[in-house]
Amino acid sequence: MSRFLDGRYAAMKPYVPGEQPQDKKYVKLNTNESPFPPSPAVLAALKGEEEKLNLYSDPTASVLVGAIAAHFDRIVKSKGGKGISEKQVFAGNGSDEVLAFVFQAFCGKGRGVATPSVGYGFYPVFCELLGIRYNPVPVKSDFSVGIRDYEGIKDNIVIANPNAQTGIYLPLSDIETLLSADKDRLVVVDEAYCDFGGESAVTLLDRYENLIVVQTMSKSRQLAGGRVGFALASEEITEDLNKMKYSFNPYNLNRLSIVAGAAAIADEEYFEKTSVAVANERERLKDSLGKLGFSCTPSLANFVLAGHPAIGGRELYLALKEKGVLVRFLSDAALSPYVRITVGSAEQCDALIEAIKQVFKEKGI
Amino acid sequence: MSRFLDGRYAAMKPYVPGEQPQDKKYVKLNTNESPFPPSPAVLAALKGEEEKLNLYSDPTASVLVGAIAAHFDRIVKSKGGKGISEKQVFAGNGSDEVLAFVFQAFCGKGRGVATPSVGYGFYPVFCELLGIRYNPVPVKSDFSVGIRDYEGIKDNIVIANPNAQTGIYLPLSDIETLLSADKDRLVVVDEAYCDFGGESAVTLLDRYENLIVVQTMSKSRQLAGGRVGFALASEEITEDLNKMKYSFNPYNLNRLSIVAGAAAIADEEYFEKTSVAVANERERLKDSLGKLGFSCTPSLANFVLAGHPAIGGRELYLALKEKGVLVRFLSDAALSPYVRITVGSAEQCDALIEAIKQVFKEKGI
Repeated sequence: MSRFLDGRYAAMKPYVPGEQPQDKKYVKLNTNESPFPPSPAVLAALKGEEEKLNLYSDPTASVLVGAIAAHFDRIVKSKGGKGISEKQVFAGNGSDEVLAFVFQAFCGKGRGVATPSVGYGFYPVFCELLGIRYNPVPVKSDFSVGIRDYEGIKDNIVIANPNAQTGIYLPLSDIETLLSADKDRLVVVDEAYCDFGGESAVTLLDRYENLIVVQTMSKSRQLAGGRVGFALASEEITEDLNKMKYSFNPYNLNRLSIVAGAAAIADEEYFEKTSVAVANERERLKDSLGKLGFSCTPSLANFVLAGHPAIGGRELYLALKEKGVLVRFLSDAALSPYVRITVGSAEQCDALIEAIKQVFKEKGI
Repeated sequence: MSRFLDGRYAAMKPYVPGEQPQDKKYVKLNTNESPFPPSPAVLAALKGEEEKLNLYSDPTASVLVGAIAAHFDRIVKSKGGKGISEKQVFAGNGSDEVLAFVFQAFCGKGRGVATPSVGYGFYPVFCELLGIRYNPVPVKSDFSVGIRDYEGIKDNIVIANPNAQTGIYLPLSDIETLLSADKDRLVVVDEAYCDFGGESAVTLLDRYENLIVVQTMSKSRQLAGGRVGFALASEEITEDLNKMKYSFNPYNLNRLSIVAGAAAIADEEYFEKTSVAVANERERLKDSLGKLGFSCTPSLANFVLAGHPAIGGRELYLALKEKGVLVRFLSDAALSPYVRITVGSAEQCDALIEAIKQVFKEKGI
């Protein structure tokens, strides 16, 4: 720390992202990336764009915003809703940036953030950075969220659905209960993991102006390295988010990510195919782990949270790392018996199972 | 504005970036981009990287940070200094993001920002967003900065060198005067435009721990659309900036920008060639404008600030836009007689001069 750092940040503890080794030596199942390469449409769209890098990107990211709006417009209309316009789409440099702007714009000393005590580890970090009251609401012993626990809470609610650590999915009827109970508090639904079995709350936007849906292209759209996230909300809220962006970093999306993101969201066939494949592989992985004595949360995400009675989470994580398989040990005390394992390709999952078997053999489990 | 926006942002006026028309119909001389395409080394480095976009980028951006450190290490050592280590380089999603983190980390209610009253229009916006006291120090009538005017000021000093609107360059001896006068205040030198005739303050880092040098790859490195900026400072300050980043958006740089930025800064030959060409074209442009009766500030940047006794800045901007040439009219009242013109290619500058001649003819100037 330098002597120039403003005092309010002296004790701040930053978010610690999962390891991102830059060599190729690991079977990497620790940060919930897609095991599939980007869509061929993305690769095609990028071609030639790099030659224009000397020119600024479009600060409105209109190609990307338009593609996102068109995608969700179809979804909402297919369910009988009014649709989604471009004025309801805010695009950011990954959903972390989108969430940061959401926290900054709509929370503060007056209105804190209530969120399940087990969730995305970044939420308390944003609160600390931005001086926002953090109000963790305890989850039940099975990690499920009790909707009634949010009754009477005046803070904005931020909820990862499915949950970012357990994969547990809250049905839309529960999200609607949160939305309708108090229309003066925002409900921010972080849907990073909703494309592998969950349903997006985007269909509720017609009826609830206190809803913000946040999504990322890092998981189901194969663009973790492209950094594209977005929010869907009312036109007014979207305008507010743009106000934050234009006061912080107007060109927050680079040229290549804009075209990559637009192509990714337009390729619905690839998206469907890869999302279904991941969901199927998740169930196969759960079965394999179950046969080894693991219990898993009922995850609808592209990962499983798995615990074994004979070995702690940290011990298993370290043993697997030694065998060249990276999984995620989460620092949250409630999760210490578990590891979070990304659903990789069949080959990667098989390699994981083999590595676990070896670890168990060596440890006499 | 939504009814959910925190009250402190209600009156906030975001930064308005220069127009970025997405069609090709303009001779675009309004946002100080390079008229040259990215270095062939950048295009080569990007090849194949897009296939890995499903994997997160390296949050430490080590390839980029290493390349930046190596470049400035050579420069500093060539002038007899100790050199620059990777621990002194902070990389961001464009220099706007870097500046935002600098303002957020080191300024606040206790310590404001003192800056020349004519400068980069984003500085007051950051202050408003982040609740920082903005202390504009009037420039002289010729837009030059009086170093003595900063004596006794306790706020951190932020200074674009060359100036972002006038291109006027402050010699390093003046920067050193600011640094040595009060070692408890930071001096942030925003060197977006320093590669076209100025000299970087990076050589002063050995001696002044209260110095932060900010640069961008948008101008002299042909990567405006790639969004790569960086800060050079003490290891402690760099650590503080990383703390801000890891509390806001750890993966702030995408995979493609990391490799593009690293390749751009390593290609010193292309950088030299293009920077010299822009500087030469700037002098030719000043001559041509002078012959038409314009007066220009003594810019060392990749733009000129030009005014003509017979036509106001807004009128000229609008007339040129109608003729297909985009220049920048700056909203600052002190600059209303002027337009800021990017130094483009020889063809672009010739087209500008032709368009001005036509405008003058039509208006009887």
